[in-house]
Amino acid sequence: MQHKLRIIPLGGVGEIGKNMTVIEYGNDILIVDCGMIFPDEEMPGIDIVIPDMTYLEQNRDRIRGMCVTHGHEDHIGAIPYAMERFRCPIYGTRFTNALIRHKLDEHKLTDVEVIDVDPGQTVRLGCFQVEFIKTGHSIAGAVAFAIRTPVGTLIHTGDFKIDMTPIDGEPIDINRFAYYGSRGVLALLSDSTNVERAGFTQSEKEIGKTFERCFSTAQGRVIVATFASNVYRIQQVADVAIAHGRVICFQGRSMEQVVRYAQALGYLHIPADRIVTIEHLKNIPDSMVCVMTTGSQGEPMSGLFRMANATHKLNVGAGDTVIISASAIPGNERGVSRVINALYEKGAEVVYDRMADVHVSGHACAGELRLMLGIVKPKYFIPVHGEARHLRMHADLAKEMGVAPERIFVAQKGAVIELSARKGVTNGTVQAGSLMVDGLRNIEDVVLHDRKLLSADGLVSAVIVIDAETGRLLAPVELYSRGFIYMRENEPLIAEANALVYEVAKRFEETDRQDYTSVKSAVKSRLKSFLYDKTGRTPMILPIVIEL
Amino acid sequence: MQHKLRIIPLGGVGEIGKNMTVIEYGNDILIVDCGMIFPDEEMPGIDIVIPDMTYLEQNRDRIRGMCVTHGHEDHIGAIPYAMERFRCPIYGTRFTNALIRHKLDEHKLTDVEVIDVDPGQTVRLGCFQVEFIKTGHSIAGAVAFAIRTPVGTLIHTGDFKIDMTPIDGEPIDINRFAYYGSRGVLALLSDSTNVERAGFTQSEKEIGKTFERCFSTAQGRVIVATFASNVYRIQQVADVAIAHGRVICFQGRSMEQVVRYAQALGYLHIPADRIVTIEHLKNIPDSMVCVMTTGSQGEPMSGLFRMANATHKLNVGAGDTVIISASAIPGNERGVSRVINALYEKGAEVVYDRMADVHVSGHACAGELRLMLGIVKPKYFIPVHGEARHLRMHADLAKEMGVAPERIFVAQKGAVIELSARKGVTNGTVQAGSLMVDGLRNIEDVVLHDRKLLSADGLVSAVIVIDAETGRLLAPVELYSRGFIYMRENEPLIAEANALVYEVAKRFEETDRQDYTSVKSAVKSRLKSFLYDKTGRTPMILPIVIEL
Repeated sequence: MQHKLRIIPLGGVGEIGKNMTVIEYGNDILIVDCGMIFPDEEMPGIDIVIPDMTYLEQNRDRIRGMCVTHGHEDHIGAIPYAMERFRCPIYGTRFTNALIRHKLDEHKLTDVEVIDVDPGQTVRLGCFQVEFIKTGHSIAGAVAFAIRTPVGTLIHTGDFKIDMTPIDGEPIDINRFAYYGSRGVLALLSDSTNVERAGFTQSEKEIGKTFERCFSTAQGRVIVATFASNVYRIQQVADVAIAHGRVICFQGRSMEQVVRYAQALGYLHIPADRIVTIEHLKNIPDSMVCVMTTGSQGEPMSGLFRMANATHKLNVGAGDTVIISASAIPGNERGVSRVINALYEKGAEVVYDRMADVHVSGHACAGELRLMLGIVKPKYFIPVHGEARHLRMHADLAKEMGVAPERIFVAQKGAVIELSARKGVTNGTVQAGSLMVDGLRNIEDVVLHDRKLLSADGLVSAVIVIDAETGRLLAPVELYSRGFIYMRENEPLIAEANALVYEVAKRFEETDRQDYTSVKSAVKSRLKSFLYDKTGRTPMILPIVIEL
Repeated sequence: MQHKLRIIPLGGVGEIGKNMTVIEYGNDILIVDCGMIFPDEEMPGIDIVIPDMTYLEQNRDRIRGMCVTHGHEDHIGAIPYAMERFRCPIYGTRFTNALIRHKLDEHKLTDVEVIDVDPGQTVRLGCFQVEFIKTGHSIAGAVAFAIRTPVGTLIHTGDFKIDMTPIDGEPIDINRFAYYGSRGVLALLSDSTNVERAGFTQSEKEIGKTFERCFSTAQGRVIVATFASNVYRIQQVADVAIAHGRVICFQGRSMEQVVRYAQALGYLHIPADRIVTIEHLKNIPDSMVCVMTTGSQGEPMSGLFRMANATHKLNVGAGDTVIISASAIPGNERGVSRVINALYEKGAEVVYDRMADVHVSGHACAGELRLMLGIVKPKYFIPVHGEARHLRMHADLAKEMGVAPERIFVAQKGAVIELSARKGVTNGTVQAGSLMVDGLRNIEDVVLHDRKLLSADGLVSAVIVIDAETGRLLAPVELYSRGFIYMRENEPLIAEANALVYEVAKRFEETDRQDYTSVKSAVKSRLKSFLYDKTGRTPMILPIVIEL
């Protein structure tokens, strides 16, 4: 019996983050990536957001394996949560797997099978054969997948850019994409992150000139903040620093860890004698020091943040040059700006993306996306890794390149795209969405909603003690509040509010003395309007009735 | 007796927003601007932030007047709060004053003297003579001030750019700056907002080409979102729309109001028969309609937001072209991005700053700032309207232009800069800072801190009822929570927590039965670790002891 190939994005469409795609045929399921996304300001207190994996839990027996394109959080961050729900072997390149294993260890998941695959190798998973193809991205070990299925070949690009002069000297393997393109590709799933930008993303090498200039003119220490996982950037900075006679000190837990893995696995080549610990710095003149640190996004616990706010051993100040080799991820602009200002206030020179070419993106721009479409020549096209506008624009690009509009799928999370050699349709949906993780568990919308209300105007609680038998109030009413007003300076107001609640509750003594719901709702509405009149604020009101 | 001229920035230094400068000599105080700033994500529930005006309240008798450079919120937003604390006449151009009067009316401050001054006119305030000089900015009626004092002339640029082809045909009056520059200027206070950008800000006219192209190709309605107060942008869009045979419908309360004032005062010239209300649109073909609306920052109550989310009468969708003629103010990026995605999801075409030239800044770039410094040739230089990095960079520009470093003052809020013809020094500080306004009053840091905690993990309250005479617990303990977990689905956990608190409180019956502080702190710490172990969350814990 001929089955249909089904492609189901569980994440990464309609959003940039938590990439996860299900590919299935007959009794076989293959998963590509399993990422998380960081919460936005609408999700107070949430640690991370992951894809709803109910569909996979329900079909756990059919899962043959998970192939991971690279080690960024939006591609691997939900793996521990997935492995708590179902199990399958995980396939990635050596660097990707080092990061995955570390993550699994942190979650005490020691018995997951993680298998190293080199670019050029093929793994067989049920009816699928997956070839790992070297690409280029802002992390080492990034690959695309050519997935041979009974219906035809899929190409999943993962995150990529076309950089023909990468730092590691091994550019994206265009020839393999061309090989499949010439033989015929059923469908292309391609990264849409940078589709808004025309032309080509600059080569990583381009920004070397800025580093060269900064290191040539700097008199004191040079401190470079970048993404911990950007091994190529780290290599590039280290090369320039060493050429200028400086030693390198890594700061920030995640950066130290990435450097350790990358050196051990041969992705990073820094002579061991040029790397020093922070304790050694005091014996080395500032002009011979380069510090590389986390914190390019202004994160409050990061190395750079602590340096800027004088809570780090490294006391940054006049004479130091700080290079922020990154651009702010949307939502982080204010945090980055605060760190820059704090560094200026301490007298440091700061070089950042508005002033100089200190960062290039890891994602393909429109020109590269056209090139990929032109090489792969897919029959069907599914833009992934993008918000609604990115997916639509990428679809428009594909139309320009000759893909028939009815063969382009701008999908929502959970949409089932069914492909055969003859036909491609969207056929229903599976359960999909976002799970917000706070602490050890998911969080419900109602709880999140309460948090937003609490953060806006705080909470006022009124405790009413009632005699269960007589219905009489047993004590004066007491108000408690947090995040509303400063109680100590507002005693008259509080006393008046206490009296008001007492009077409202008292009225129920005679009539509906068992009807606590009515008492509560009367207290709520009277107290709410009283407090609003007096303060212009609308705290959440929590009436508590104690029955004795 | 010879007094010293004192310049005291109460806001707008070390921040972009809430601009306010005090200028005093002998018994006379002159205020320049009185702005607010919108709260950031660190200030949940706060409505606006204004300068601490204690110094002015304490010196209210010496205040001769307030001169206002233009009508943006960061220059006029705190005026009602100031006028509740002290009184003085307010001087501005007609358009600025229209916005100020509207604001005062909203605060029921009907007896404040607001005096219209045209560019070129001079007002005398105590020992000061203030000449209003026409500048260019992203709002009509913007001026700089030449302030003649007994010690010398100050130039305060306000917000400005040097646009020699502005929409209203009246460019910045460079000749007046040159006049004062040639006669000798004691000090220049100049806008630092765009100092990070090299070169010159583009002319407002430049983006006309984009509008022309969009209107030429659009088949359906064209919807343009921009800042309500940007009268020049409104004029420019209206001109293009009318040239293409379209009528104009204004949406959003603040935009409708600005248009009304600007038309009445002669700042805006749109034929009345080309303006229609939303009710008339149903009789007009889409190809003849242009809608101008607020919401370019993705604000949740704005016209564009409601259109994108189908809560506006205007049902935006396929066939419509939406132009977002603005760039996102730092902190608003995600909100703008969400609106763009929502519009794409509804099928509209969206044109925004990443794709096309649809916006130019209202602030001078480094090239213009150099020009201003070169024309005015000040003896002393005080960069204003900037965060720490902007002020430092602007100071560096001034040094390049030949101002001696010891004559440049990168000031903090409240710093007193004392100038005489011979000497300039920073001499102490006055009280200054930020007041956060929530509802009708200021808010204390401790309350704000509580709000942040509440928003992170919610609140759990444990009510313990104790017999005042015997010290015995009178009832089982009851927990109440908001924003922590969904109580209904966690009854076993809650029951266990209730029992734990009861057990902790019970232990105090025997020993320290009057020591409620110890009971509370024991309950807090035990409950905190219990809940963290079970949920990974740390809600705020509010133990309530009721004594009967």
